[in-house]
Amino acid sequence: MERNILLTIQYDGTNFSGWQRQPNARTVQGEIEAVLSKICAMPMQINGTSRTDAGVHALGQRASFKGDFGIPTDRIQLAANNMLAATVGTPRQCADVRIVKVEEMPADFHARFDCKGKTYRYVIRHGCEADVFQRNYAYQLKEKLDIDAMREGAKHITGTHDFACFQAAGGTPRETTVRTIFDLQVLERDEETIWIEVTGDGFLYNMVRIIVGTLVETGQGRKTAASIADIIASADRRNAGHTAPAEGLYLKEIYYDAEEMKKGR
Amino acid sequence: MERNILLTIQYDGTNFSGWQRQPNARTVQGEIEAVLSKICAMPMQINGTSRTDAGVHALGQRASFKGDFGIPTDRIQLAANNMLAATVGTPRQCADVRIVKVEEMPADFHARFDCKGKTYRYVIRHGCEADVFQRNYAYQLKEKLDIDAMREGAKHITGTHDFACFQAAGGTPRETTVRTIFDLQVLERDEETIWIEVTGDGFLYNMVRIIVGTLVETGQGRKTAASIADIIASADRRNAGHTAPAEGLYLKEIYYDAEEMKKGR
Repeated sequence: MERNILLTIQYDGTNFSGWQRQPNARTVQGEIEAVLSKICAMPMQINGTSRTDAGVHALGQRASFKGDFGIPTDRIQLAANNMLAATVGTPRQCADVRIVKVEEMPADFHARFDCKGKTYRYVIRHGCEADVFQRNYAYQLKEKLDIDAMREGAKHITGTHDFACFQAAGGTPRETTVRTIFDLQVLERDEETIWIEVTGDGFLYNMVRIIVGTLVETGQGRKTAASIADIIASADRRNAGHTAPAEGLYLKEIYYDAEEMKKGR
Repeated sequence: MERNILLTIQYDGTNFSGWQRQPNARTVQGEIEAVLSKICAMPMQINGTSRTDAGVHALGQRASFKGDFGIPTDRIQLAANNMLAATVGTPRQCADVRIVKVEEMPADFHARFDCKGKTYRYVIRHGCEADVFQRNYAYQLKEKLDIDAMREGAKHITGTHDFACFQAAGGTPRETTVRTIFDLQVLERDEETIWIEVTGDGFLYNMVRIIVGTLVETGQGRKTAASIADIIASADRRNAGHTAPAEGLYLKEIYYDAEEMKKGR
């Protein structure tokens, strides 16, 4: 009987050319499909929920795959993680990608099509010297940002809007650029660290990174918080801020239950 | 006039084949010498205080170099860091090595020979699943360690002893294996994180990593705290614990003033 398996996956995106399988490039999808194909003794393809770009990290990416294979569900995680760790050059207790949960799902479940929304986290360090250990894990800015101004600006982004201004060229064409941001928080983690956490029903290409770039410019005083409403109304990418670098971005959580997503926020 | 410059250097050791210059390998010394040679417009060689191994990190490595060159001392740091960042493949605000301080020293100062002692930090995560983001920065152990037992064991290591039992083969031959450990702390940073911080007048090859491996085995109940005195007395490497992996080790601080080192502890 065909089974339908849902994976929850963490990865450090630094050494991956993004999520999506590509010939001659190391990708998260490619690495996981390779080990699942060995474990299940048949060619396996997985459907990821989010096609993260090169350098982007994940705390809770999801992907599903189907097949009629023998290995018990609870053995897949251990076997895959051991094989992934073994593919990394030096001996390590874990690779830069790790399966953290494996679930058996109903036959009609699909990791991407059934997704009701996502939360991304973006990590900024500000007002301090660049830290060599954070170079792949945060957007590091020497100047201090005005967090109150960023929070003021964030209020204009929350809600249902046409977000064409926050869409980069080059993504998959979409029917509409209207999306709903349920929640957008600018969190002060410590004196040097800001987390921007954003939950929405869907995101356009590079949307989170452009929102962050726009909020950073607001925090630098280069844009006013009030101007963000005008930027959105203009539907023009050129009015928004820069695209913040990939290394600060983390796909934090995927929701399959819309109510749970709204409660969790 | 010949000047004598002391650098304080941070690096993420992950992508380096250690400190020491080698042909056909990316090393910290090699990278820094290359940029200093450009900045000073003459071939530059630096003397590092500690020859850290591949994968070992530094928060405060020191190195000195001499020469009769024009660039002002306070310009060296910015110029070198900009050039180092430019050598990293993708655009970043900092490379995996960064000069954090540049000082002009008296002519007879030498970064290595004048060193009175060092502090190393070793980072352990225990009692938790491996974290992909910590794979290069900590020794990750699924089981929970007995921290009290490790502290008990550490007491036997503090002081002046013949530490032949904690010396790996393959290092530079030394006149004596007697060293003084001024301080050895097992610090509980949070529920999952232990920092072992050790300050001594000098360290034998792999000494810190073997001390950590021995303390980990004590925390696992595979060795008793009391047996550590016997291990030291035996002067036999085979009686000590395993060599803990390089990725958990950080060269934290170098001391040129013995009194300051003892006060700081």
